[in-house]
Amino acid sequence: MTTNALDAAETPRLLLDAARMQANCVRMRDRVRALGPRFRPHVKTAKSLDVTRAMLGAPTGPITVSTLREADTFASHGFTDITYAVGITPNKLAHARALVARGIDLTLILDSVEAARAVRDAVAGDARAPQVLIEIDTDDHRAGVRPDDPALLAIAAVLADGPARLQGVLTHAGGAYDCRGDDALRAMAEQERAGAVHAAQRLRAAGHAAPVVSVGSTPTALFARDLGGVTEVRAGVYVFFDLVMAGLGVCAADDIALSVETTVVGHRAEKGWTLVDAGWMALSRDRGTAGQPVDQGYGLVCDARGRPLDGFIVVAANQEHGTIAHRSGDPTRRLDLPVGAVLRILPNHACATAAQFDRYHVLDAQGAVAAQWPRFGGW
Amino acid sequence: MTTNALDAAETPRLLLDAARMQANCVRMRDRVRALGPRFRPHVKTAKSLDVTRAMLGAPTGPITVSTLREADTFASHGFTDITYAVGITPNKLAHARALVARGIDLTLILDSVEAARAVRDAVAGDARAPQVLIEIDTDDHRAGVRPDDPALLAIAAVLADGPARLQGVLTHAGGAYDCRGDDALRAMAEQERAGAVHAAQRLRAAGHAAPVVSVGSTPTALFARDLGGVTEVRAGVYVFFDLVMAGLGVCAADDIALSVETTVVGHRAEKGWTLVDAGWMALSRDRGTAGQPVDQGYGLVCDARGRPLDGFIVVAANQEHGTIAHRSGDPTRRLDLPVGAVLRILPNHACATAAQFDRYHVLDAQGAVAAQWPRFGGW
Repeated sequence: MTTNALDAAETPRLLLDAARMQANCVRMRDRVRALGPRFRPHVKTAKSLDVTRAMLGAPTGPITVSTLREADTFASHGFTDITYAVGITPNKLAHARALVARGIDLTLILDSVEAARAVRDAVAGDARAPQVLIEIDTDDHRAGVRPDDPALLAIAAVLADGPARLQGVLTHAGGAYDCRGDDALRAMAEQERAGAVHAAQRLRAAGHAAPVVSVGSTPTALFARDLGGVTEVRAGVYVFFDLVMAGLGVCAADDIALSVETTVVGHRAEKGWTLVDAGWMALSRDRGTAGQPVDQGYGLVCDARGRPLDGFIVVAANQEHGTIAHRSGDPTRRLDLPVGAVLRILPNHACATAAQFDRYHVLDAQGAVAAQWPRFGGW
Repeated sequence: MTTNALDAAETPRLLLDAARMQANCVRMRDRVRALGPRFRPHVKTAKSLDVTRAMLGAPTGPITVSTLREADTFASHGFTDITYAVGITPNKLAHARALVARGIDLTLILDSVEAARAVRDAVAGDARAPQVLIEIDTDDHRAGVRPDDPALLAIAAVLADGPARLQGVLTHAGGAYDCRGDDALRAMAEQERAGAVHAAQRLRAAGHAAPVVSVGSTPTALFARDLGGVTEVRAGVYVFFDLVMAGLGVCAADDIALSVETTVVGHRAEKGWTLVDAGWMALSRDRGTAGQPVDQGYGLVCDARGRPLDGFIVVAANQEHGTIAHRSGDPTRRLDLPVGAVLRILPNHACATAAQFDRYHVLDAQGAVAAQWPRFGGW
C-alpha cells in the first residue's frame, strides 16, 4: 500500500485522474456518435472549462447547464449554444434575456401554461428571444408534462403566440438511477426515447415544427440501443463517474476519475476506526449508494495511488472528520496506518463531491499533480 | 401567505435574519458569562467576518476554526488567538508554523504520541511554537484519548520535551446531538465537563501546568448547569440554529436565523408535489433530522416571510430541484401556489447549508435585504 506518509501536500484535495476522464469522454462521444444524435454534454458535474472542453473534444460546442451562472461563465468563454435544463422561473427571465441580448442561443425549458405565458410576456418586445423546449416527464420522477398530456398542446399554443421560439421537447429520465440491472436500464432508455418522440410527434401533428428531441442521462445514454427520432443527447456525470454509477453497473470502480485525497488524523483501535481529515465538507453529505445493493457509506477507501482497500468505507462524517471502518463492522479488521498516511476516497456522487471544492488537482499518468483546474459554483 | 410572486430577486439565495442572529448571539454570550469560562466561538458554521464579530460582540477575539484556511482569513483581519480544533496532521505543520511565525497565537490539538512527536520534531528549531491541547474523548463518538487513558501522560511527556507548549485539554461532546430530552443533554454537558477536568487534573498531577480546559458544543453549552474547572467554552451552530437543534429542544423553529429563498418552478398536482429551484446544491444533502423524532426531509417549508407552512417539507432533492410535499404523504394536501411564488426553506444543518453559498443576504427587521456578507470555503 502506498501512503506517501511524510511529504504529502495539505489535504483534503480533490484529485482528477486525467487519463480516466479522457477515457470516459471518448467512451461517451463514441457511444452517442454510434447512436446518431448530436451530443450536448451537461456541465453541471464539473463546472469547469477545462473539463467541458475534454467532454466536447473541442474548445467550444453545445452545452447543457443547470444554473444561469454556468451559462454566464461559459458564454464569457466563447460558448454560444446553451440549454438551461431547469424549468425557468419568472425571476430569472431578466437574466435569461440579457444572455440572449449578448448573442447567446439560449434554450429554456418549461412544463406549464403559466410558465409559458411568463416567458411569452417577458420577451414580447425583444429583438431576439430565447428558444424554448417543453419538458416531458417520461419516468414519473420529477418535472414535465406526460407525453400524452393535453397540457402539451396548450403550452405550445401559448408559445406559438409570441417571439419565443418553440423548438421541441426535452426529457431527463432521472428515474434511471433507480433501475436495477442492464435490462431495466435498457428499458428505461427506450421509455425515455419513446416518450420524448411521441410528445414531439403530437406537437408536429398540431402544426408546430418541433425540430428538437432532447433526451439524456448517463445511464440511458450508455444503455440505449436505438435513439430513433432523438436529435440530441445530454449527459454529465459520466465524465468522472462515481460509486452510484458503479453500483448501477454503468461503470467499473476503476473508471472513477475523481477522488478526495485525505490524511490519517488518528485511530480508535478498539472500534476499528481510522479518522481522516475528509469529512462531509470534503466528501459532501451525499449517500446515494444507501439505497443500492452495496452501501458505500460516504465513500470507498483507496490507498494513496487510488487502489481500493477492499471493504473499507467512510462509515461516518462530521464537518472535517471522516471515520473509516470495515464494512463488516468487525473492529479487528482495521487499517493499520500511521498518523499522516495518505488515502483517497472515491465519491458516491461526483456532482456533489466536486461541488465542495474550488479546483481540481489533475493527475498525470504517473499520479503526479500536473495542473490545477478551477471550478466555480453559485447561481 | 406572502409569496412576492412577481418582483423577486433570482433564487436560490441564502437569507440571514439579522435580528434572530443577534438574539442567538446574546443568548449564548449571556449563558457562557453566567457559567464563568471565557468564550471562544467556532467560526466554522458561518465562515464570515461579519457573523464572527456578532458572535464575539467585538471586532476581534478568541476563535475556534475547523480549517487552516479559516485561520489564515481571520489572521488577515486582526484575529490573533486561534484554536484549530481538528487533530493536526504532519502535512499541515508547515502551514501552522507559518501562522505562528506571523505572530498568531495558534493552538493545535492532537490525541496520539505519534502526532505529538510530529509536532515536537517539526517545531524543534522555531523561535515561536504553537500551543497544544490534548484532545479528550468524553462521549465515545469520535477522536480523543479517554480521560483516564495512560496515553494522556505519554503524549504530555513527548510535548514537555520540546518548544510546543502544552496548554491543557480540549473536548467536544458531539454525542450531544444524539441526546433525547433535556435531562440527557444536561447529563452530557456534565459528562463533557467532568471528563475534561479529570484529564487536566491528571496532567497537573504529573507536573504539567495545563491551564486550559476547553469544552463545548451548542447543546452542552446551553444545557450545562455548572462548568467548574472549565476555562473555556466553544460553540458555533447556535449563531444560526437549525432544524437539528430545534429537534433536540435546544432552540425553537423561530430562532432559526438562516433560510434558503426559493421559487416555485412547477407542480405535479396528482402527486401533491410543488417543485422549487432549491435542490441539494442549495440545501445540501444533510439529512440530520432523519434520525430525530420529527424528520424534516431536506428542510421545513415557510412562506416568503419565513412563517412555517405547517406540515410541508422538502421530501426530495436533485441538484437544482427540490420537491415539496406534505409530510403526511397525502397528495390532496398540497401548496396551491403559482409558478414564480417565493418560499423559504429552513435548513436541517446550518453548517452544511451555509457552505453551499458564497454570501449571506442579510435581512433587516422589515424583511428587506439590507446587506450582503461574503463567506468563504475551502482549505
